[in-house]
Amino acid sequence: MTLLPENGLILGTGGANSLTALEEAIAASESTLVTVALRRVDAAGPGLLPMLDRLGVRVLPNTAGCYTAGDAVKTAQMAREAFETDLIKLEVIGDERTLLPDGIELLRAAEVLVADGFVVLPYTSDDPILARRLADAGCAAVMPAGSPIGSGLGISNPHHIELIVQSVDVPVVLDAGIGTASDAALAMELGCDAVLIASAITRADDPVAMATAMRHAVTAGRLARSAGRIPRRFHAVASTADDGIAQW
Amino acid sequence: MTLLPENGLILGTGGANSLTALEEAIAASESTLVTVALRRVDAAGPGLLPMLDRLGVRVLPNTAGCYTAGDAVKTAQMAREAFETDLIKLEVIGDERTLLPDGIELLRAAEVLVADGFVVLPYTSDDPILARRLADAGCAAVMPAGSPIGSGLGISNPHHIELIVQSVDVPVVLDAGIGTASDAALAMELGCDAVLIASAITRADDPVAMATAMRHAVTAGRLARSAGRIPRRFHAVASTADDGIAQW
Amino acid sequence: MTLLPENGLILGTGGANSLTALEEAIAASESTLVTVALRRVDAAGPGLLPMLDRLGVRVLPNTAGCYTAGDAVKTAQMAREAFETDLIKLEVIGDERTLLPDGIELLRAAEVLVADGFVVLPYTSDDPILARRLADAGCAAVMPAGSPIGSGLGISNPHHIELIVQSVDVPVVLDAGIGTASDAALAMELGCDAVLIASAITRADDPVAMATAMRHAVTAGRLARSAGRIPRRFHAVASTADDGIAQW
Amino acid sequence: MTLLPENGLILGTGGANSLTALEEAIAASESTLVTVALRRVDAAGPGLLPMLDRLGVRVLPNTAGCYTAGDAVKTAQMAREAFETDLIKLEVIGDERTLLPDGIELLRAAEVLVADGFVVLPYTSDDPILARRLADAGCAAVMPAGSPIGSGLGISNPHHIELIVQSVDVPVVLDAGIGTASDAALAMELGCDAVLIASAITRADDPVAMATAMRHAVTAGRLARSAGRIPRRFHAVASTADDGIAQW
Repeated sequence: MTLLPENGLILGTGGANSLTALEEAIAASESTLVTVALRRVDAAGPGLLPMLDRLGVRVLPNTAGCYTAGDAVKTAQMAREAFETDLIKLEVIGDERTLLPDGIELLRAAEVLVADGFVVLPYTSDDPILARRLADAGCAAVMPAGSPIGSGLGISNPHHIELIVQSVDVPVVLDAGIGTASDAALAMELGCDAVLIASAITRADDPVAMATAMRHAVTAGRLARSAGRIPRRFHAVASTADDGIAQW
Repeated sequence: MTLLPENGLILGTGGANSLTALEEAIAASESTLVTVALRRVDAAGPGLLPMLDRLGVRVLPNTAGCYTAGDAVKTAQMAREAFETDLIKLEVIGDERTLLPDGIELLRAAEVLVADGFVVLPYTSDDPILARRLADAGCAAVMPAGSPIGSGLGISNPHHIELIVQSVDVPVVLDAGIGTASDAALAMELGCDAVLIASAITRADDPVAMATAMRHAVTAGRLARSAGRIPRRFHAVASTADDGIAQW
Repeated sequence: MTLLPENGLILGTGGANSLTALEEAIAASESTLVTVALRRVDAAGPGLLPMLDRLGVRVLPNTAGCYTAGDAVKTAQMAREAFETDLIKLEVIGDERTLLPDGIELLRAAEVLVADGFVVLPYTSDDPILARRLADAGCAAVMPAGSPIGSGLGISNPHHIELIVQSVDVPVVLDAGIGTASDAALAMELGCDAVLIASAITRADDPVAMATAMRHAVTAGRLARSAGRIPRRFHAVASTADDGIAQW
Repeated sequence: MTLLPENGLILGTGGANSLTALEEAIAASESTLVTVALRRVDAAGPGLLPMLDRLGVRVLPNTAGCYTAGDAVKTAQMAREAFETDLIKLEVIGDERTLLPDGIELLRAAEVLVADGFVVLPYTSDDPILARRLADAGCAAVMPAGSPIGSGLGISNPHHIELIVQSVDVPVVLDAGIGTASDAALAMELGCDAVLIASAITRADDPVAMATAMRHAVTAGRLARSAGRIPRRFHAVASTADDGIAQW
């Protein structure tokens, strides 16, 4: 089984209005991997896990709400028992206002969890050096933020995402900040292997429509990258010039 | 029959390496409307029109290569006879370096052609006032440039495209400048009804892959707009906050 | 006497809280050319022109509030008598929401006024072709909008401003949209010869501080352009590498 | 004595063509603080320090070329002896391609040096959480990168710089990436207290002109921030509307 979904789309459950709305959105997205906060499962009631099982999606537990390496490690260990999986989306948050990750605590927790046999997918900042250190520490993927969680600002620094793609050998998942479909397409064009989307779908006016949009966007972006785009030019290039179809 | 393709994708034929490559790309795009330069048809030989007919796509003749209103009007009239259609994509180019339209000549030609019974789709700049004047003159749609033809710069001024969408009652088609899938998705998110793509597909390393990408991108962008995206915020919004799924 | 102020800064009077505040801001800016709407002078009372005279600044009358070529031409002629100058900043507005210029009416009015001996400085959109046509029609300068008047959005499409600078032989003045100092610096770096600023100064919390900021910004931008900036690079370039000062 | 230069401009010496060119550029900038790489001083020969002394500028030693905390700490200690100052610009580089800082090693070195009595100014990434941790560790300022050293890409992520300004109580110095004057003005408008510039001046075609431009740009940006800029608006705001000068 591959680590990431074939269609490149990982969903988050936060922000959904109801379990039914969430189920419909996940189904529309055709995602096969959904991240769930250990600390929210009880609150979500008994419905969440059976629903995910019914859809045939794997669970990627996460450590949302943890602010220290120790807390995150403990939460990850509880998640392993609760969900019977070695997969962990590792979150160690730096502050409440930005919800951006604390790189120092994150790397520390990642090192412990890798040594403990986890398959660690850290939610990290878009700092290229930190991403490489996480990869070097044995993480199975790196998940840089495009912009703060729930901000809908998209990818604030595409240059950093490109630098990360160039500098690590593990998959790169754009995590956090996506607001709309073109953001998701851009992430894939920059070379990401997947995107993780929660609020942009669950809090959209029509989550099913947005989930469908994201599915198409990720496919579009991945295909566009593989297709080899035309270069950017300052001036125009006539599409019907003599080097065009006239030569037939 | 509606004016624009249902899937929101209009293709241009310029830049293709061969008739076969073009046919495969058009088929992959599932576009049902393809623009053809009258002045290139002879050069393209007898193969082009039968191929388009075979694919079941309509032809949208264009006046590429015209630099004055008079020239464009004459070319449009020849195209009407040659292609047996009242549809015309009206191009009146201002200079060779930018291939941007000359608004003065363009409006003049549009007025003549509308009066002559044409269904006029003018390739215009992203000037919101000019776009509205073209709509007021009876054009069936307006086709603003995202950036210069073949430049691959995408949508240089999204604000202007939004202003155009707000100020005209006819369909808006993003024409020129698209380089990759996220550009096409963005155009639809800004409220365009369709995009026109030529070089970005025909000159990509793999035109079929890029045509498929563009098909998904346009669908993604249109769905995302209809879905009602989340607002942009300076700070983070926790996806798993207490207003989230905890309420079930 | 040169057409444009030596320090590259033209001010507008609109939006000021009081005549005194306006005087202090103009003095701080060290601008020697201020545009005044003919239609506002009566409203402004007898104080405005004596104040400008006292500061030693020239008046550049403008046709703000005109929506047709005919109206603008008539207003320009009244301004010539009222201000005893052939200089005219030609404004022909397309709609109230954007206050963007109507290129069709603008060119028509410009042709009439040039033939009538005016020194015409048209407020135009950032459409490169229209700017060139205005220059070809004998305008003494072109004044493209960076973004809508009073929007503070800065230069929405730097690429278009660069194309205009490349394609006309007359001075280019960035008019409308500037919100802060870095916008003004950027205008000059793109090759503009001057900037026109009204609301960004008059409506700032501290107009004198902002006027001073703009004065420095225009100087900074002009010097930076003349200085020949370093190229943009995807990767880093060590400032202390072996090709650095080690060679002494 | 205040930590940062009153005019907000710190210069770097790397990239200069000659000692004379460097001296002229520093003089033109009116900077009173210049950073010098300990590892380059010998190479620079006996001329550098006397020249700086002659200009009356303080030296800010830096640890350029260090890749580990241990190496940086040792270099800082040597610098303290060599330059007889507790000031240290702390650089711990993550890789040669981006020259971006390694946050993990950086924080470790900062903690050691703060405990050892240094006044530590760390060159950091634009990660807001890391910046806050450096401030919490006792650093006297934080110096986030706008983009990679020598890239001339300006400020790739203004949002992160704003977040840093909001989240630390120590001065913020924009370090690395500035290419031209408007970049420097923007840094100050975002709330930075100073900018550090090396290549953008020393490698410009005319370093003296660029140094002068940067001096004006920093003044412009600082004044503009203090002046309270107008808000950004989607639509236009007439500068000569009835709420304007008509009320006099």
